[in-house]
Amino acid sequence: MKTLYAADIRDSQLVDGFFLVAAKHHGVTKNGIGYLTLKLLDRSGEIEARVWERAEDMGRGFDRNDFVRVRGQALLYQGKVQIRVQDVARVDASKVAPEDFLPKSAADPAAMLEELQVILRSIRNPHLLALVESCFADEELMNALRSAPGAKTIHHPYLSGLLEHTLSLLKLILRVVENYEGVDRDLLLVGGFLHDIGKVYEFSYDRAIDYTDEGQLLGHLVMEVEVVSKKIDAIADFPPELAMLVKHLLVSHHGAYEFGSPKLPQTLEAVILHSLDDLDGKIQAIKNLPEKEPGSKWTVFHRAYGRSFYRQKPAQDDGDA
Amino acid sequence: MKTLYAADIRDSQLVDGFFLVAAKHHGVTKNGIGYLTLKLLDRSGEIEARVWERAEDMGRGFDRNDFVRVRGQALLYQGKVQIRVQDVARVDASKVAPEDFLPKSAADPAAMLEELQVILRSIRNPHLLALVESCFADEELMNALRSAPGAKTIHHPYLSGLLEHTLSLLKLILRVVENYEGVDRDLLLVGGFLHDIGKVYEFSYDRAIDYTDEGQLLGHLVMEVEVVSKKIDAIADFPPELAMLVKHLLVSHHGAYEFGSPKLPQTLEAVILHSLDDLDGKIQAIKNLPEKEPGSKWTVFHRAYGRSFYRQKPAQDDGDA
Amino acid sequence: MKTLYAADIRDSQLVDGFFLVAAKHHGVTKNGIGYLTLKLLDRSGEIEARVWERAEDMGRGFDRNDFVRVRGQALLYQGKVQIRVQDVARVDASKVAPEDFLPKSAADPAAMLEELQVILRSIRNPHLLALVESCFADEELMNALRSAPGAKTIHHPYLSGLLEHTLSLLKLILRVVENYEGVDRDLLLVGGFLHDIGKVYEFSYDRAIDYTDEGQLLGHLVMEVEVVSKKIDAIADFPPELAMLVKHLLVSHHGAYEFGSPKLPQTLEAVILHSLDDLDGKIQAIKNLPEKEPGSKWTVFHRAYGRSFYRQKPAQDDGDA
Amino acid sequence: MKTLYAADIRDSQLVDGFFLVAAKHHGVTKNGIGYLTLKLLDRSGEIEARVWERAEDMGRGFDRNDFVRVRGQALLYQGKVQIRVQDVARVDASKVAPEDFLPKSAADPAAMLEELQVILRSIRNPHLLALVESCFADEELMNALRSAPGAKTIHHPYLSGLLEHTLSLLKLILRVVENYEGVDRDLLLVGGFLHDIGKVYEFSYDRAIDYTDEGQLLGHLVMEVEVVSKKIDAIADFPPELAMLVKHLLVSHHGAYEFGSPKLPQTLEAVILHSLDDLDGKIQAIKNLPEKEPGSKWTVFHRAYGRSFYRQKPAQDDGDA
Amino acid sequence: MKTLYAADIRDSQLVDGFFLVAAKHHGVTKNGIGYLTLKLLDRSGEIEARVWERAEDMGRGFDRNDFVRVRGQALLYQGKVQIRVQDVARVDASKVAPEDFLPKSAADPAAMLEELQVILRSIRNPHLLALVESCFADEELMNALRSAPGAKTIHHPYLSGLLEHTLSLLKLILRVVENYEGVDRDLLLVGGFLHDIGKVYEFSYDRAIDYTDEGQLLGHLVMEVEVVSKKIDAIADFPPELAMLVKHLLVSHHGAYEFGSPKLPQTLEAVILHSLDDLDGKIQAIKNLPEKEPGSKWTVFHRAYGRSFYRQKPAQDDGDA
Amino acid sequence: MKTLYAADIRDSQLVDGFFLVAAKHHGVTKNGIGYLTLKLLDRSGEIEARVWERAEDMGRGFDRNDFVRVRGQALLYQGKVQIRVQDVARVDASKVAPEDFLPKSAADPAAMLEELQVILRSIRNPHLLALVESCFADEELMNALRSAPGAKTIHHPYLSGLLEHTLSLLKLILRVVENYEGVDRDLLLVGGFLHDIGKVYEFSYDRAIDYTDEGQLLGHLVMEVEVVSKKIDAIADFPPELAMLVKHLLVSHHGAYEFGSPKLPQTLEAVILHSLDDLDGKIQAIKNLPEKEPGSKWTVFHRAYGRSFYRQKPAQDDGDA
Repeated sequence: MKTLYAADIRDSQLVDGFFLVAAKHHGVTKNGIGYLTLKLLDRSGEIEARVWERAEDMGRGFDRNDFVRVRGQALLYQGKVQIRVQDVARVDASKVAPEDFLPKSAADPAAMLEELQVILRSIRNPHLLALVESCFADEELMNALRSAPGAKTIHHPYLSGLLEHTLSLLKLILRVVENYEGVDRDLLLVGGFLHDIGKVYEFSYDRAIDYTDEGQLLGHLVMEVEVVSKKIDAIADFPPELAMLVKHLLVSHHGAYEFGSPKLPQTLEAVILHSLDDLDGKIQAIKNLPEKEPGSKWTVFHRAYGRSFYRQKPAQDDGDA
Repeated sequence: MKTLYAADIRDSQLVDGFFLVAAKHHGVTKNGIGYLTLKLLDRSGEIEARVWERAEDMGRGFDRNDFVRVRGQALLYQGKVQIRVQDVARVDASKVAPEDFLPKSAADPAAMLEELQVILRSIRNPHLLALVESCFADEELMNALRSAPGAKTIHHPYLSGLLEHTLSLLKLILRVVENYEGVDRDLLLVGGFLHDIGKVYEFSYDRAIDYTDEGQLLGHLVMEVEVVSKKIDAIADFPPELAMLVKHLLVSHHGAYEFGSPKLPQTLEAVILHSLDDLDGKIQAIKNLPEKEPGSKWTVFHRAYGRSFYRQKPAQDDGDA
Repeated sequence: MKTLYAADIRDSQLVDGFFLVAAKHHGVTKNGIGYLTLKLLDRSGEIEARVWERAEDMGRGFDRNDFVRVRGQALLYQGKVQIRVQDVARVDASKVAPEDFLPKSAADPAAMLEELQVILRSIRNPHLLALVESCFADEELMNALRSAPGAKTIHHPYLSGLLEHTLSLLKLILRVVENYEGVDRDLLLVGGFLHDIGKVYEFSYDRAIDYTDEGQLLGHLVMEVEVVSKKIDAIADFPPELAMLVKHLLVSHHGAYEFGSPKLPQTLEAVILHSLDDLDGKIQAIKNLPEKEPGSKWTVFHRAYGRSFYRQKPAQDDGDA
Repeated sequence: MKTLYAADIRDSQLVDGFFLVAAKHHGVTKNGIGYLTLKLLDRSGEIEARVWERAEDMGRGFDRNDFVRVRGQALLYQGKVQIRVQDVARVDASKVAPEDFLPKSAADPAAMLEELQVILRSIRNPHLLALVESCFADEELMNALRSAPGAKTIHHPYLSGLLEHTLSLLKLILRVVENYEGVDRDLLLVGGFLHDIGKVYEFSYDRAIDYTDEGQLLGHLVMEVEVVSKKIDAIADFPPELAMLVKHLLVSHHGAYEFGSPKLPQTLEAVILHSLDDLDGKIQAIKNLPEKEPGSKWTVFHRAYGRSFYRQKPAQDDGDA
Repeated sequence: MKTLYAADIRDSQLVDGFFLVAAKHHGVTKNGIGYLTLKLLDRSGEIEARVWERAEDMGRGFDRNDFVRVRGQALLYQGKVQIRVQDVARVDASKVAPEDFLPKSAADPAAMLEELQVILRSIRNPHLLALVESCFADEELMNALRSAPGAKTIHHPYLSGLLEHTLSLLKLILRVVENYEGVDRDLLLVGGFLHDIGKVYEFSYDRAIDYTDEGQLLGHLVMEVEVVSKKIDAIADFPPELAMLVKHLLVSHHGAYEFGSPKLPQTLEAVILHSLDDLDGKIQAIKNLPEKEPGSKWTVFHRAYGRSFYRQKPAQDDGDA
Repeated sequence: MKTLYAADIRDSQLVDGFFLVAAKHHGVTKNGIGYLTLKLLDRSGEIEARVWERAEDMGRGFDRNDFVRVRGQALLYQGKVQIRVQDVARVDASKVAPEDFLPKSAADPAAMLEELQVILRSIRNPHLLALVESCFADEELMNALRSAPGAKTIHHPYLSGLLEHTLSLLKLILRVVENYEGVDRDLLLVGGFLHDIGKVYEFSYDRAIDYTDEGQLLGHLVMEVEVVSKKIDAIADFPPELAMLVKHLLVSHHGAYEFGSPKLPQTLEAVILHSLDDLDGKIQAIKNLPEKEPGSKWTVFHRAYGRSFYRQKPAQDDGDA
């Protein structure tokens, strides 16, 4: 059980904890003495560490991407806390809980999954309901949905982020469809449920969130069409037009060619799905952006959105409200 | 009182009605006989008319943009209904109701305005409430809001279209803010109310919807900042930061430089306002698009959105639902 | 059997032949007499026709998109040949050969298909060979490939155009791979074979080449991934990495996001496939462009490529060379 | 009175001077001894400083953005001059002249302002002259114009840079209007005077040039329309069309949507103003660019313009010419 | 000598004049009688003409792009003046003055050329002066410069338009260089003189302004580098750096890749030349744009600039000022 | 003769070799002792070096861009090999072989040049053959072609890279023209030969590959048109149309305005040349990209192409295949 997190370590503190080795470099002082510089990671963030004694010996025992137990003392170096390591040793991956080393959603995955299922079971179209149930019955898919991240960096970049985003989007859809007549609520809910489901194959997240080769070469849009296409084929009498409309929601949900949608949204539901998906992602991303510097009303610069954001009150006050 | 509308005229029908002259051309047959070709307009659409007898005489009595009374008979020419005119004469603008000659919202302006006021009076922030009330107290502005169109062509291009869109957006905002914590509901409602208010100066719509010179040279974003800036100056103790945030909602609501926003949305509320404004406009525009040809599942091509839209059922069935 | 083609009809000629009705409009002369204006189509092009006598009667017997037998006489009107119709009557689609009414490749489909199979059977990788053979064994797919067009307008817009382009591309690939080491010839051939196979579902071409609803909403890239994915699943032990590489060729072959590829080419083979596919299409399109006016060295403007092309000798001389 | 500037400090020199603290970091040597790294700023540029003795003590007495008096000795470190600090202590902002700590125009603000007023008082249109005079009478505005910078980085990024650019532009306008008939000289002069006046609110420049919150969220275009709109309202009988034309010059002067103009220049004067404004800014920016390396004919890369510039003679020779 | 111009022909007028045949179409009436429709052109504009009698006979005697003498009578048809032709016959090109059939500059070419030479002979750099003189000595080039148009459509699209624009630009350069130190006046004048000189080969303008094949395939930028390169080679001791700077002005003067400059302006002079060239062209183009409709303050839409322009007074009043 | 290369130096190795000084910085330790940091370069890559003893003395003897002989010992510092210098002294450029200090093609220049000449002498068009021979007869040009690099970074960035690319392209052209009728093989070969010939003036490569001033200000497209234009002028009776077509191949071969082509490809041959040139460059660039990290299937990110590439097997295995 991990009890000490990188973000909590303070100047002068004694350190004894588990970390993921994100980088490992050998150095030599001017006097010819070897040392090690490490970057250690857990779900709270990163911390640098230096091994000055027996560096060569200890360095042989572990590598980048290994989990290690580190003992030493924290000190301030160039304004940042750093660990001066006395001892560092590899620990087996089976001895640690992966979720300790990756950020995760603040919400409970099981509760989110249940809420999602309740919403989707309100679908009245029998074909679409059958499609949804065939996904619920696919344990591997459901397990993956429980923990997959929403992204590598842009929005919901943490474990269960995909589920958190999907649920929030479904709830948003439920509200918005009440404002307009003539929108196919069931179709839109299915689109909301499946629009990012391919992300369970697009990302690997056992040690750090990264793209899989398939994710990089095919992308979640195409992969989820494959998955959904096979599920639909297995449902008797699924109307071809409805199948086409469901797949259209998937391939068009990025809303524009330059964001990787091979087709623009061409149904009312596809236009709405793209718009609400984009909005939900942006709201979460903006709320989670750290401020530029403590007390500032401005966040750090968000590269994908090309701007910083202004908040009426700095982020740390949010808790009080 | 106008009783006969262009869209209702059928082959062989006797015609006696009031129209706006949208175009007037003189022609000469091969035998040297002069005639007139007219384009006549009312809120239902356009119809062509020809004057074969006494064309010169009758042509002297009216001009483009005049209202006229037309008598004659309808016939089919190249697959379209056309009026063969026996008599055409100018009528004074005071004798006709302008709204008969421009399309208008299907909803009642008075009822919409009342609903809008009820929503906005739920604002709790006293400064923002004062701003809203100072707009309500501005009769000229309220009268203009009652009838102004939402656009020339893109979305809500009819009388009271601005009010219809504003109200729909406010109701959408009310629903969406319930899905997220930390969004300033009052600020967002004020943004929704004022984001297009400059359109009352951007368009002229006494005979046809068109841009005013000011609308073309300054645009509604800048004009509404001027209006709101002056109203805010007249309210005692309006907090400068709040004034800045309201104005930011206005200048950024088109969401991108290429759509004429001089600043990108840089607050959470500005991001949401742009997104919902865009979505509400698109939903209305798509729903109102005529189909490509009778019975087709595809609409005509929407130039601004660069595509046609597919509907599960062709548009004429909507009435049954 | 169709013997008379629109493009061959000359001034004053007596006409008796079969055509597809591409447009049908009713008109009324100034004297109140009804007539019909028709646009008639076959694979050689279009011709206009007018019915002046018994127009109402004859017009009842057929509609747009019907096949008709037309009798009458040709005359010149405003510099163009037109048919003055004496008689026009609907004929059943079963009585005509659809290929008479659509342009088709100058090459023989059967011969092309055989050449294509010979090339593809030279593949040595057993998994890829199995994939190719499973496509050959799919009669419906092969039949569709025999006649499908390559496009609606851009390049190879005629029956068997897809096959013609696919074969030409495969032959080009065979030559180009000899110039470079380290290119996976088998993979590239499979990519060349399958890169546009989804077009058999993207277009309808029973009467005129047009997009299907699926083609418009999903596109051939996505549809062919579905097809290929299912064929691969049915082959025992198909290596997952190889499957991924095949699909990557399909999803990236348009080469850029703005041309509807959700992923950029990210393997050497994907880069080559995109480049040669694009080149082969352009060469055919440029060679088939008509000149701007008879004798000109410039072709008409090609909208998709945004330019006219210059030829050393005008196109009609090509035959002599 | 500041006598020693960062750019003039040489290796081994004894240092005693006032600086602005641009950065302050705590460090710890391998032996556990704390030290301070400072970045010190004045209008001539930046210099790094290290406090090795009594670092903790001295560090408590000042913070980032404070003015300090620094005593010590210069030395070379990695090819750059650095200060080894013996003593550093905060001094009150009232004791220093802010302009010593920011770069400023080489020209005299008072002289420039007088020249600007002479030019503008040559305006013959009484309404425009009244507008200009009402600005001259606004002491706060004139004081701000005297010292405001022209930009944060792109061009004229120093105190009085706005005034320098405005004056240079007015003089350029005077010359250019002589080359063309039919240009409204008075309108163009007013546009030149006011086109950037909103920058006095867009930037803060008491310690370093930075965007204000208002500058970031509204921008100088919109802010100056507000200012000018209120001044015009206060002038009796200002013609509405003329007001519209003045404001159009302001909102369109960036010349393109992507540069933050909500409207394109749509009058002859607006086209000219944008062109000359852009040209004057570019000329100054290019002339002030440092060369890539001493003696090079190429300047450093200008990020906003996306290129380096070539000079016939390297920049340091300019003085001789 | 041409005395009657298309733009001056009024309803019912007897016509006898020379025109260029811009289009010639054969038609047949419903009664089987052949007629001709002609489009006739001269420098004042276009007029339509119909030949009803002996059409076949007369049509044999001339073709498109021939000069013809036309006799007949004007009448109004669909609101436009048209000529009903009694007689039309080809006249030899040697019998007409080409400049009667193309629009030309309002200024005198000889006077403009002299003024241009006076300006350029003020150059003090002996190498640049030699280059300028070698151009003056090239009679063919000077003759072409005397009459070449400035463009096909964008700006200065009339005979001697190139000279008019070049002279205006040189005068503008003379004024602007006075506003800035450190600008190489001589280099800039040479750039202004030669920047469009390749247009004498880019356009043909014996009957209508059109691109030559070379103009279309190489463009005036590249062609003028060839010309200037050869002239420079023939001047003894022309400094290579100076040659490079002159050519750089030519290749970069369109200012951006998308406007066909293979290099961006990378010297101060190149930046200024591009800016002033662009401005001078725009000013002339805007001033010459016709208004949208008589009396309107708005011009017609300018496709290349993507907008209409607003004028304080409609264009026809300009003469009075 | 250089025997020791930077890339081969290992930890602890004794060093004695010749290098190019790419950077030279003076530093001072906290104890006030001066030292030197050097960046040393040869064709295998870069290595860092430190001079701790007699740094000031030794530093006087050489400068950046000098060739030096370096003696010392290698050690590891922060994971990288570094040289601790005992002695460093300038050596005259005449004593070293420049090609030891720049990467070069793996193929033999003389053999490549011969193969290229054989291919080009197969041209049958006598005018084009004369053009090719006049280039072969230009010794300076041929010598430059023998060693010029293909680029600074994008593709073929090494000595003789231009020749390697040109030859590969010619061989590719020979294969591709066999696949299509109606392509002018001779014209295309000449285009392939000359399309980049201007690069011999665009780059300097005596010490490192860099742009010349002319290369930066004019570019190879324009420079090679100058060269070819003069060679053509010297050939009697070279047909003007053919000259135009050759030059068009040069100016359009980058294929798009944004890549610096002032004209788009507008002949069949120009379209093919651009496509194959682009493809050949990309294939070489992708094959030479190093992998992201040892053993990875992904290459490093290629900035110009905006992506990483996936390889079935990591690059180091290529040799075995």
